[in-house]
Amino acid sequence: MALDRLKSVAQHVTGTSPPPHPFDPLSNQEIESAVSVIRAAKGKLFYNAVTLREPPKKEMLKWLESPSTLPRPTRIADIVAIAPGGKVFDGLVDLNAGKIVKWEQMEGVQPLITMEDLQIVEHVVRKDPKVIEQCVISGIPADEMHKVYCDPWTIGYDHRFGSDVRLQQALMYYRPHIDDSQYSFPLDFCPIFDADKQEIIHIDIPEVRRPVSKAKPNNYHAASIEAEGGYRTDIKPINITQPEGVSFKVEGRVIEWQNWSVHVGFNYKEGIVLNNITYNDHGNIRPIFYRLSLAEMVVPYGNPEHPHQRKHAFDLGEYGGGYMTNSLSLGCDCKGAIHYMDAAFVNRAGESTTIKNAICIHEEDSGILFKHTDFRDDSVVVTRGRKLIVSHIFTAANYEYCVYWIFHQDGTVQLEIKLTGILNTYAMLPGEDTKGWGTEVYPGVNAHNHQHLFCLRIDPNIDGPDNTVFQVDAAQGAGYVGSKENPYGNAFYAKRTKYSKVSEAISDYDGVTSRTWDMCNTNKLNPHSHKPVSYKLVSREVPRLLPKEGSLVWKRAGFARHAVHVTKYDDDQILPAGRHVPQTSGEPSRGIPEWIANGDASIDNTDIVLWHTFGITHFPAPEDFPVMPAEPMTLLLRPRNFFLRNPALDVPPSYCSTPSQILEGKQALDLKDKASKLVVVGGSGDASAQGASCCQK
Amino acid sequence: MALDRLKSVAQHVTGTSPPPHPFDPLSNQEIESAVSVIRAAKGKLFYNAVTLREPPKKEMLKWLESPSTLPRPTRIADIVAIAPGGKVFDGLVDLNAGKIVKWEQMEGVQPLITMEDLQIVEHVVRKDPKVIEQCVISGIPADEMHKVYCDPWTIGYDHRFGSDVRLQQALMYYRPHIDDSQYSFPLDFCPIFDADKQEIIHIDIPEVRRPVSKAKPNNYHAASIEAEGGYRTDIKPINITQPEGVSFKVEGRVIEWQNWSVHVGFNYKEGIVLNNITYNDHGNIRPIFYRLSLAEMVVPYGNPEHPHQRKHAFDLGEYGGGYMTNSLSLGCDCKGAIHYMDAAFVNRAGESTTIKNAICIHEEDSGILFKHTDFRDDSVVVTRGRKLIVSHIFTAANYEYCVYWIFHQDGTVQLEIKLTGILNTYAMLPGEDTKGWGTEVYPGVNAHNHQHLFCLRIDPNIDGPDNTVFQVDAAQGAGYVGSKENPYGNAFYAKRTKYSKVSEAISDYDGVTSRTWDMCNTNKLNPHSHKPVSYKLVSREVPRLLPKEGSLVWKRAGFARHAVHVTKYDDDQILPAGRHVPQTSGEPSRGIPEWIANGDASIDNTDIVLWHTFGITHFPAPEDFPVMPAEPMTLLLRPRNFFLRNPALDVPPSYCSTPSQILEGKQALDLKDKASKLVVVGGSGDASAQGASCCQK
Ligand SMILES: [Co+2]
Ligand SMILES: [Co+2]
Repeated sequence: MALDRLKSVAQHVTGTSPPPHPFDPLSNQEIESAVSVIRAAKGKLFYNAVTLREPPKKEMLKWLESPSTLPRPTRIADIVAIAPGGKVFDGLVDLNAGKIVKWEQMEGVQPLITMEDLQIVEHVVRKDPKVIEQCVISGIPADEMHKVYCDPWTIGYDHRFGSDVRLQQALMYYRPHIDDSQYSFPLDFCPIFDADKQEIIHIDIPEVRRPVSKAKPNNYHAASIEAEGGYRTDIKPINITQPEGVSFKVEGRVIEWQNWSVHVGFNYKEGIVLNNITYNDHGNIRPIFYRLSLAEMVVPYGNPEHPHQRKHAFDLGEYGGGYMTNSLSLGCDCKGAIHYMDAAFVNRAGESTTIKNAICIHEEDSGILFKHTDFRDDSVVVTRGRKLIVSHIFTAANYEYCVYWIFHQDGTVQLEIKLTGILNTYAMLPGEDTKGWGTEVYPGVNAHNHQHLFCLRIDPNIDGPDNTVFQVDAAQGAGYVGSKENPYGNAFYAKRTKYSKVSEAISDYDGVTSRTWDMCNTNKLNPHSHKPVSYKLVSREVPRLLPKEGSLVWKRAGFARHAVHVTKYDDDQILPAGRHVPQTSGEPSRGIPEWIANGDASIDNTDIVLWHTFGITHFPAPEDFPVMPAEPMTLLLRPRNFFLRNPALDVPPSYCSTPSQILEGKQALDLKDKASKLVVVGGSGDASAQGASCCQK
Repeated sequence: MALDRLKSVAQHVTGTSPPPHPFDPLSNQEIESAVSVIRAAKGKLFYNAVTLREPPKKEMLKWLESPSTLPRPTRIADIVAIAPGGKVFDGLVDLNAGKIVKWEQMEGVQPLITMEDLQIVEHVVRKDPKVIEQCVISGIPADEMHKVYCDPWTIGYDHRFGSDVRLQQALMYYRPHIDDSQYSFPLDFCPIFDADKQEIIHIDIPEVRRPVSKAKPNNYHAASIEAEGGYRTDIKPINITQPEGVSFKVEGRVIEWQNWSVHVGFNYKEGIVLNNITYNDHGNIRPIFYRLSLAEMVVPYGNPEHPHQRKHAFDLGEYGGGYMTNSLSLGCDCKGAIHYMDAAFVNRAGESTTIKNAICIHEEDSGILFKHTDFRDDSVVVTRGRKLIVSHIFTAANYEYCVYWIFHQDGTVQLEIKLTGILNTYAMLPGEDTKGWGTEVYPGVNAHNHQHLFCLRIDPNIDGPDNTVFQVDAAQGAGYVGSKENPYGNAFYAKRTKYSKVSEAISDYDGVTSRTWDMCNTNKLNPHSHKPVSYKLVSREVPRLLPKEGSLVWKRAGFARHAVHVTKYDDDQILPAGRHVPQTSGEPSRGIPEWIANGDASIDNTDIVLWHTFGITHFPAPEDFPVMPAEPMTLLLRPRNFFLRNPALDVPPSYCSTPSQILEGKQALDLKDKASKLVVVGGSGDASAQGASCCQK
């Protein structure tokens, strides 16, 4: 330990640091190295992204088997840059060799919109005479343009403008006062911004005009709450502490916890990326997932009137879940004993930047892990569970997405997403009919129907990379009631359908059969059940894509057409709506529709990727406004036939007694939590927790 | 306060106590009073149940409007008793008057099986010569009958024996050692026990015999874990404390918390019953639910071979979720600052008994309640949520059900159920084919497929008792892509279908449309949205009943045929499979099928009850054995168009800054949690939480 400290100090002093893990995101230093290599060769460029190009999986799997003896895979930077005039370049830089290994000008594509890109639009909009004219028509005096705001979105796709010019659509709002929530004062017109010329090239103006609302502001900030009677005063603190430290270990970006090991990566598009997830099964390190990430999402809005069809943000591919990530705060976003990781990015000028505390890692109690009481003698085991949570939060203009990757002691990996933030809103006239396409959540505020559809990319590695997916449906047994095979009519079973080729794997959710999907290693059977070792995808929030077949959203968000697609693994297939999403026309559809074009490709017992689209359909209500209480959705990846038995049996119980102990009056195992207290209820009805700890029943 | 204490002491000394709330369960004293009234009139009886007969709703609604001026509704005890010889009596005793108001002999019904009923069977089985003979055939020496155990279940229904004789089926097991888990050693035959005669009247013996397994025991108790290497030592404690007390108030059994008020009742069948749930909306006490409970459940098993069709336990109606409830332990079942409530029951002899700590009430942090960051200037609000949890756990022979009623600050009521405990198991021969009806979870152990189907009884009171249910389906807009009404094909809306009469309300879940159900008060529109105030049932774990139409389970568990039924309110309609469930033949089907017989009855804008069946289909795996990690399922009751806006805006934020504060460098509102700590990662990779609190980003 003393020696370790010394080494750590030495590193600090000499400035040397251990070489990065091949999955580590590029460091600030590596980002700047990559930029300097490009700059030397290519001159002045605006940088859109400099990120890790992950090592080829084949090479990486080999390295993971013997990391101490094999050479580390080369560090490659993946670069997207835009030249003055708007030319887009994709490049790769070998950081070990310090040289460009690929440099390609991309035609007819637009890379994502960065925060810097976004910030410019509002300034331009406020000075544009045609926008000012529209503001005046909306009822905003020309000298109040500083009160006009916009949420710039990529244009999505508009056939009038195509893909060659980099465009944003400015969703317009007004703030009577700088601190007022602008979403209560939407404006009815939509300027189009040319990112290269930095000017407004068009304004979409509706036929029916809707002047800015005269309603009073609808705020949630402290001053407004104070003015309405103040904050409630009856919430007593809950303290969550770990006086002996946390139960996880951190080695670089590898977290070890409760037999789990996972490398926590991060990139500008997907945000958190979990790699090389393994489970130490009694000394046997078993691979489970090579890579897990939220790889894309789309938020189609359901109002058919022009230009609302353009509202269908791909928040990851068009803006970047990493780029939009929040710097998290202790005691605010995160409660308990917290380990943070930062995120390094490039800015437009090519300098490296850092988002502090981009990722939060912490443990939580998770209630009862298992319990059983023998009704004969009350002999009992009760064991509490624990979970490890790796999370980040990103702000996509009005919305916030809180992403929680949760590891459980029973071998389950859970993905939970909470939606909060503010509804996207549009202007409406007093008494106007929303026609069912939205809800008047506040006078003059129409919150349109929309879906939040996420694409989870699962790269399974269930005891090795050769895996097979089976669809599992709960099915009634054959035979009528009274038949020989089903005399009582009660027979039912898990109907398993193997996905042998890509075309068979294009599948939807079926609530009637409680459909799940098993990712199996068919080469390895569970010794007890004689079934293939597997992880089961259990996901119940799986709406269909509501925009119709052939619609713009349907064409652009090909991944969202079905709940599950399975493809053969390919190093280049990470982003299911394609690498450059803004202004894609959907003709042809990028990403998954391309990758499943050959429906006959085998996905049987080979290296595969499962793409799962899930989410919610959101019909707004006044309760969601002016800021929305978090709406949770969740899915599970559960071990089935993977372990020989419940893998958490050796988690220390809170209490464990056996029949013989009870019979013989012997001491049971009592490891109860000593910090818990009984509430003392006073005569006045007030309840406090000052009583002594008590474990008597 | 001093005066209050004095009063409380005085009550203790004099033995007077405030009169019970009309929803309060019967006290021990009341139970004994009821028994003494019956005993005086009817002589010796075995008591099956003495429980509160809840006041007529009409009378109770009136009383709730003016509890201080109106007389309390009469306390009525509802009694089920069995006379020697097996005659069953239903009775009512007016406790205020001390007299019997109803006494009826019931023909052809059997009341539920109590824990006392269960306990007897094992003793009888061990001494029965025919059972001993079968044990010997199974490979158990006759002198090892003390190692033979049984889980007695009601017989369900077996046409050979009918309903007149009170019967149990004994699911047989063996324990090599008293502390071994018997579920690894199932026996293949099934004795039938006559509860009146207290003897075995029949044994069901399969054609194919399966001797008791020779596998080594598969245990989870401390000694077995120690023998396998011991408990893991790397879990550091998490302490959850409330140094200033809890945020709820307790007045008798009425809990007040965060604008919520709820009366927490309990009975022997349903367990927790929540009554008169209201929300204080800025001084306006708004009723939401008159009554919420889990009112029934059924667990059909899917193996078609005789006699497994009899395995379809109605755990509430046949055994009682209250009767089987656990006495909870501080620091074991419950963590943090805990308030307990006890449960009072009658025993067979007519004495009152108490289960200490039957109900746990506590608060938990629930993560981010809402958050929004303005991307322009990082002005932000982040507010953490809190939840109140009212829970109990019951043990149904092998299984445990943990029931959590959760109240949220945003007006949501959540029901979460965790399944744990042990799989019901049956014997199998080495190498035997399960034929897909079960899984070999351990050598010689066949865990059959089964479903856990719960029936949630919702008695809505959405701003008053006259409510209407609408089915809500996410639907595509009319018109092809390119049509005038849907030019871009993106139109979608919430299709609402009103349930005007009982026959229209018989409905299934639809995963494709993400179907939900709104309980509305159509007489009251939300001032902003102009839609009826409502609570929405959001439930995604809704498998269909897999036993076929016409099967025994289908006939007996009529409530489970559909996800939703709606009935007009009736004081007598509480238990959806009927009042006395054991040995019902399903001809006719009791409960809901009777109550929906008149399909034309109006359920439009009247006092209604919504019955919701949900749950999971469980295909066992070795991970579920020898004790199953808790499997969660959940559903939400969410306010929609009920509140004018997010009702939690006045929850104190952790941090709140505004654009003007940021612009002017002014102090933001900073109420962050001070107990949270940064983890310090040592050079060795060990992580501890000894760092100072830090809220800097
Ligand atoms: Co939404
Ligand atoms: Co089960």
